[in-house]
Amino acid sequence: MTQQLNIGLIGFGNIGTGVVNALARNAELLTERTGVQARITRIADVDIVRAREAKYDPTILTSDANELLNDPDIHVIIELVGGLEPARTFVEKALRSGKHVVTANKAMLATFGAELFAAAEEGNAALFFEASVGGGIPIIRALELGLTANRVRTVAGILNGTCNYILTHMASQHKAFDTMLAEAQAHGYAEPDPTYDIEGYDTAHKTAVLASLAFGHDIRFTDVFVEGITRMKQVDFEYAAELGFAIKLLGIAKADDSGRVEVRVHPTLLPKQSLLAGVDGVFNAVMVEGDLVGKTLFYGRGAGADPTASAVLSDVAAIAAAVGQGRTPGEHRLRVKKTGAKNLRPVSELETAYYLRFAVADQPGVMAKLSGALGDHNISIRSMIQRGSAGTPAADVIIVTHKAVEHDVQAALADTAKMGITREEPFILRVEEDL
Amino acid sequence: MTQQLNIGLIGFGNIGTGVVNALARNAELLTERTGVQARITRIADVDIVRAREAKYDPTILTSDANELLNDPDIHVIIELVGGLEPARTFVEKALRSGKHVVTANKAMLATFGAELFAAAEEGNAALFFEASVGGGIPIIRALELGLTANRVRTVAGILNGTCNYILTHMASQHKAFDTMLAEAQAHGYAEPDPTYDIEGYDTAHKTAVLASLAFGHDIRFTDVFVEGITRMKQVDFEYAAELGFAIKLLGIAKADDSGRVEVRVHPTLLPKQSLLAGVDGVFNAVMVEGDLVGKTLFYGRGAGADPTASAVLSDVAAIAAAVGQGRTPGEHRLRVKKTGAKNLRPVSELETAYYLRFAVADQPGVMAKLSGALGDHNISIRSMIQRGSAGTPAADVIIVTHKAVEHDVQAALADTAKMGITREEPFILRVEEDL
Repeated sequence: MTQQLNIGLIGFGNIGTGVVNALARNAELLTERTGVQARITRIADVDIVRAREAKYDPTILTSDANELLNDPDIHVIIELVGGLEPARTFVEKALRSGKHVVTANKAMLATFGAELFAAAEEGNAALFFEASVGGGIPIIRALELGLTANRVRTVAGILNGTCNYILTHMASQHKAFDTMLAEAQAHGYAEPDPTYDIEGYDTAHKTAVLASLAFGHDIRFTDVFVEGITRMKQVDFEYAAELGFAIKLLGIAKADDSGRVEVRVHPTLLPKQSLLAGVDGVFNAVMVEGDLVGKTLFYGRGAGADPTASAVLSDVAAIAAAVGQGRTPGEHRLRVKKTGAKNLRPVSELETAYYLRFAVADQPGVMAKLSGALGDHNISIRSMIQRGSAGTPAADVIIVTHKAVEHDVQAALADTAKMGITREEPFILRVEEDL
Repeated sequence: MTQQLNIGLIGFGNIGTGVVNALARNAELLTERTGVQARITRIADVDIVRAREAKYDPTILTSDANELLNDPDIHVIIELVGGLEPARTFVEKALRSGKHVVTANKAMLATFGAELFAAAEEGNAALFFEASVGGGIPIIRALELGLTANRVRTVAGILNGTCNYILTHMASQHKAFDTMLAEAQAHGYAEPDPTYDIEGYDTAHKTAVLASLAFGHDIRFTDVFVEGITRMKQVDFEYAAELGFAIKLLGIAKADDSGRVEVRVHPTLLPKQSLLAGVDGVFNAVMVEGDLVGKTLFYGRGAGADPTASAVLSDVAAIAAAVGQGRTPGEHRLRVKKTGAKNLRPVSELETAYYLRFAVADQPGVMAKLSGALGDHNISIRSMIQRGSAGTPAADVIIVTHKAVEHDVQAALADTAKMGITREEPFILRVEEDL
């Protein structure tokens, strides 16, 4: 008789329903590939009344997740509750008691990752999380297995479909942020409360997970510099296009030769011919640059029930195969050992090119004052646009700098504020030319 | 003391030298990640005189590969000889005697794959081959581990940098095939004898490897329909661009719902907005479409010493980690079991759209005859260009069809040949609109 792997699913929302359906559809395939029959034997959710579009035995539903966690017949917990608590308590309890866990929960990993991996070790259980970043794109395995001979220099990704949808359409349809946000909500691409996505928190959680894997340090959400997309104006897309750039919300993690790591999330100007610049709509992509492999790109659907189920079930399959062979799941994954404390580079020391938009009074001497303030802080100008509106004394001045240091740029902007030539706070975007 | 993994390297050419250098550079990293110290203890090559740009102890060189194969202290053989023999004999002998093998040899895998995997099983050894397809792109792991919960529908890739370099520049620089081939040779992107690349054989070997993994059948080079790029004319790039297409040499493997598999290599028209259409120069990319994940794309450097070393050493790392943990290497890889005989769809039954170029006499009635011949075989026309040259009675007629069946297209072309209206054999390219 085929060995069975019993799964308890906690969280029966959209993704949970997708996992139930995907497992039903491809159960035979998974058994062929793993030698083990994986089946969901219990499901916990706060709502056990609402009907889901899936075939399931309603008697396996419970509103008490502890029934699953205490069930000795359950080998694996799939955690799809999301958020920090009670997800973290569930996962820690499962791991401590020797149940393997598959999760899509990047917030939890970016906040309590090290504690959870310690709990896994304690319980001799495995924690799998392919679904936490990039939806169906197997980027976690790429970092843990595929590119493992490389010293990773850069990981940079478009990791949030909601933001990419909004930015893509602000650029192509010349619409304002608020308009596009409302459209994204109408299409179901943005949540009723979109804060988590549009403020960049989701991207920051995912970037912390990727950075931890790539550089082998315990990099957390609080280590990430985060700027969302809510201040983006339509006019910036026009100026960027004129200058040959696209604008994307990127999660970026880079290590320099001395091992210093910078981890940041912000809207970013990318040259139009860059690989990531072409990733549009709800798609995700992750660029990994390694010392041997050079630049690689991984592209696919970053969200949605089926792509996420693809990642969740690839983790289930890895566990099933190991259990079937009497192995400990996850042993084959490789990681850089955490040698020494993490060494983070603060954003004030960031060196990159900058896009600066000033709203100025259109009067003689303004340009000289602006460029003087920049020059005083070692910032040189690469290109510039000045655009006045007919009949008004106001103009936009857009400056793209050569590489400069963030604290110099901030100091120069503080100087310009004192000069009384700008009508509103200057707008800064960072430029990445080598992605 | 750190456990050691002794490696015998067979084949000390460009890639072999790259592996020696990459291992020297990242040895510490690999030890951190695997807990085991991997080191090359013997190297065999037919030429042990020529100096290589690498640091190595010349006393470990031998011209007799059997010295490595018979050395009981060697745990792993890296085979970088290439070609069918003697590579196959070396690899089979190594596996039978319990040595694990890492190879980049797609020709060998596409010709003797099943026999080699049987030898591995016999010797309780593992055969790893990440470097055989896509250079540094971890596409083998993506199929074996990352997308394993999916029923794969399509794998399609730009798998040969030489061909992609030539086609990219024929399109952008309006140059003839022979000119671009000579330039590619001058830059070292094409071999002095380029047949293996430009006739599509290399792409076919890689496509057979990918198809075997994706569909779980023993698909070999001889199962692949192959057309190279040597008949490509500059004019076809112009007409294709006018019609909204790029032209790429693709390896394509598709399975239909009944499990019938088609495996083919040919220059292909792709809509310009398709992901693969944007992959230029010496880069490779593989698109995998699964029933859950949808379309994913994996992109990177498909050749070169460092990217190939990245793949070779990721395999070495997997073996090192397993040996260090007392596990059998490779057990964690998942494959579709080969249930039933392979069921191949012959190219005559292929259903796709076609690009047809006719050189006709520019005289009344020609178009009616051409379209009549197509209509007689159930082929309907989607778009058409007719272009005459001033002062000559000759014209090009380019037709893009709706979906049609290959044997109908061939029959229609045979009919047009009998009509005496074409001045040379019509040129056919296949179109893929859904990649």
